[in-house]
Amino acid sequence: MREVYLDVENSGFVLPEVLEAMKPYYYVRGYGNPAIPHKPGQEALEVFDMVSEKVLEALNSDDGNIIFTADDTESNNLAIIGYSLANRRKGKRIIVSSIEHQSVLFPAEWLSKEFGFEVVKILVDSEGFVKIDELEKSITKDTILVSIGLGNYEIGTIQDLKAISEVVKDRNPETVIHSDATSAFTWVPIDPDKLGIDMITISSHKILGPKGVSALFARKGVRLGRILHGAVSTQPLRPGVENIPALAGFGKAIEIALSNWNERIRKVKGLRDTLMERILGEIDYTLLNGPRGDKRLPNNLNISFLYVEGEALTIELSLRGIYVATGSACTMRELEPSHVLIAIGRKHEEAHGSILFSLHSRLSREDIEYVIKQLKEAVNRLREISAWKPGKEVIKPGEIYRGGKHGK
Amino acid sequence: MREVYLDVENSGFVLPEVLEAMKPYYYVRGYGNPAIPHKPGQEALEVFDMVSEKVLEALNSDDGNIIFTADDTESNNLAIIGYSLANRRKGKRIIVSSIEHQSVLFPAEWLSKEFGFEVVKILVDSEGFVKIDELEKSITKDTILVSIGLGNYEIGTIQDLKAISEVVKDRNPETVIHSDATSAFTWVPIDPDKLGIDMITISSHKILGPKGVSALFARKGVRLGRILHGAVSTQPLRPGVENIPALAGFGKAIEIALSNWNERIRKVKGLRDTLMERILGEIDYTLLNGPRGDKRLPNNLNISFLYVEGEALTIELSLRGIYVATGSACTMRELEPSHVLIAIGRKHEEAHGSILFSLHSRLSREDIEYVIKQLKEAVNRLREISAWKPGKEVIKPGEIYRGGKHGK
Repeated sequence: MREVYLDVENSGFVLPEVLEAMKPYYYVRGYGNPAIPHKPGQEALEVFDMVSEKVLEALNSDDGNIIFTADDTESNNLAIIGYSLANRRKGKRIIVSSIEHQSVLFPAEWLSKEFGFEVVKILVDSEGFVKIDELEKSITKDTILVSIGLGNYEIGTIQDLKAISEVVKDRNPETVIHSDATSAFTWVPIDPDKLGIDMITISSHKILGPKGVSALFARKGVRLGRILHGAVSTQPLRPGVENIPALAGFGKAIEIALSNWNERIRKVKGLRDTLMERILGEIDYTLLNGPRGDKRLPNNLNISFLYVEGEALTIELSLRGIYVATGSACTMRELEPSHVLIAIGRKHEEAHGSILFSLHSRLSREDIEYVIKQLKEAVNRLREISAWKPGKEVIKPGEIYRGGKHGK
Repeated sequence: MREVYLDVENSGFVLPEVLEAMKPYYYVRGYGNPAIPHKPGQEALEVFDMVSEKVLEALNSDDGNIIFTADDTESNNLAIIGYSLANRRKGKRIIVSSIEHQSVLFPAEWLSKEFGFEVVKILVDSEGFVKIDELEKSITKDTILVSIGLGNYEIGTIQDLKAISEVVKDRNPETVIHSDATSAFTWVPIDPDKLGIDMITISSHKILGPKGVSALFARKGVRLGRILHGAVSTQPLRPGVENIPALAGFGKAIEIALSNWNERIRKVKGLRDTLMERILGEIDYTLLNGPRGDKRLPNNLNISFLYVEGEALTIELSLRGIYVATGSACTMRELEPSHVLIAIGRKHEEAHGSILFSLHSRLSREDIEYVIKQLKEAVNRLREISAWKPGKEVIKPGEIYRGGKHGK
């Protein structure tokens, strides 16, 4: 049976070339602590320095600070909590969008509960774009931080960070802007100077590098405090021993992504567009979540299959060798509908039937054809046995794009 | 040239068998998010469950909670901050020993600064044993947490946790006891019931498993709060996607350590004792830091070489293929003498010449002979060119064990 993995958003596999780049650092070389002046330690420090450089190169920056953390959750916590606590004397207002990842929203809420910060969530439109006029009104003198993700992890919406930063800095030039770019990294060019942003989260496992490492970019002059406390090895802001094999893998994954940028994006976007148009055109009662065109991450597709339960479809597809997720992994255990889908106006029953397809560079046309064929069969099968049937309308016609019988 | 790595305390290499156990999970199987009900996710969940079981087995416990974190720094932060903030209504007094690792001391100090906790540091004797009478006096009704490491990471002192827990629980049965056992794990039997302790930190890379994973054991009923905030995948207390290849490696490293327990310890202790006696007997002006005999971790040796600067000796030995650390990696960048050595009464100049040898199971007699030979030459060479010469006594005779010319 063919196997097609379409869930790199929730957990990436590692490219074989990346694993090859990691192997020597487990026990052949560079397995020391980079703070120790012996050979295996100094080899480790060379990896650390090289990957720091690669991250700066990928962000087209030559003077930012790179802090490596264990994962994107920690990087986002460091940006939100580490920045806010270190700068609380300047003000206690934090602005986020209502569709941020929980690793941005929850640290902000924790700051509110424990330290009395005021957290404002800016609404988005039906495609997930931040309402910039609302954002503008929310920026006050004591607004120290704005955090808005570059590309939404669930519905792929690419925010206009340049416009956002202009509005924010115009109202308060002191306000620091953070962007969780984990899902956008290597799919959208990121340049902190051009975008006018100050902190950026990126992560290894979202670009087919290993888990165990993520980075927070912070513009020079942005003052951060530690969120984990302990013995400093090499990084003043992150105690503990650096994970050198993971760093080597992250470096390799960045290198691969930079080397085939245009070709990779063209290919994946083509596959994604085929998958999108065929599903919406050939399967009834389907709704696209998020925007179309260039304002959507090229590897993201999110579709609600009405009259189907998303988890049941995930399991049914898995039996056919196709691996997708319903909504976001993040909310699965909570059995709550995705806050992102609710924020763009989806009803609970629409959100529950949503499937996130997150694509990658190693897919083929044949994979996508296989997915379409199996998906049709799986959806039909589930709808046949489902108690939830068409008839009672759950969507207002014309409100949003709909595929199949409902037309556009 | 022979290469002998004696710095597993600061960074462990990974056993080849461990890397073999990790490899499939990078892209062959189990690379999914364990919260997602597709095949690669469910394979990931199987690894997660299996390694949780292995950790419980290694701790001889059948009903504790295991929380996997990114590293020992995070596990210690979770124990200290996660427990204290979740239980602050019961009291705000925390007791630690003065020779705890910084990843225990600094979170406690942060709680003091940010939340008004009272942190008491219990003194140790000249071999690093906690003064139990002082500990006893320090336990009050509002003492919610005691954290005392099982085996000291720098001087190898194995604390009598059973005696400690009896004293603590006798004074206040509600007080929860945490032990950072990262350096002791697989070198000393750890049984939370027999020792009477409630939380235990262990780490993969200290037992020749990969970096990227550590565990906090918490007895059932011990209430913890999150220290990182975000999207829960599989573990309620630790948001983010689990690092499955690292977990698989951790599991394998535990399995190997459990399978050859007695033989491994006998062998490593024998090599360590040879190294210790030969250095103290054959190199002048050497001081043993920490205790002798069964109350010392079998793989730990810490010796001050007077009239030599520890960092210079580390570099000189590295040129000869021998990889050790001066004091602890943790303090290196701070250029401060180790707080552990100062706590046991070492003078600054004695602490500065200290070398930490942390041994492992893959060493041979020939390796140790090579180390002794090279060490003698290296120390002689550095003493010849050093401005710091014998003559002005820096040690009180008879105060502590001294090798070489000074006798015992």
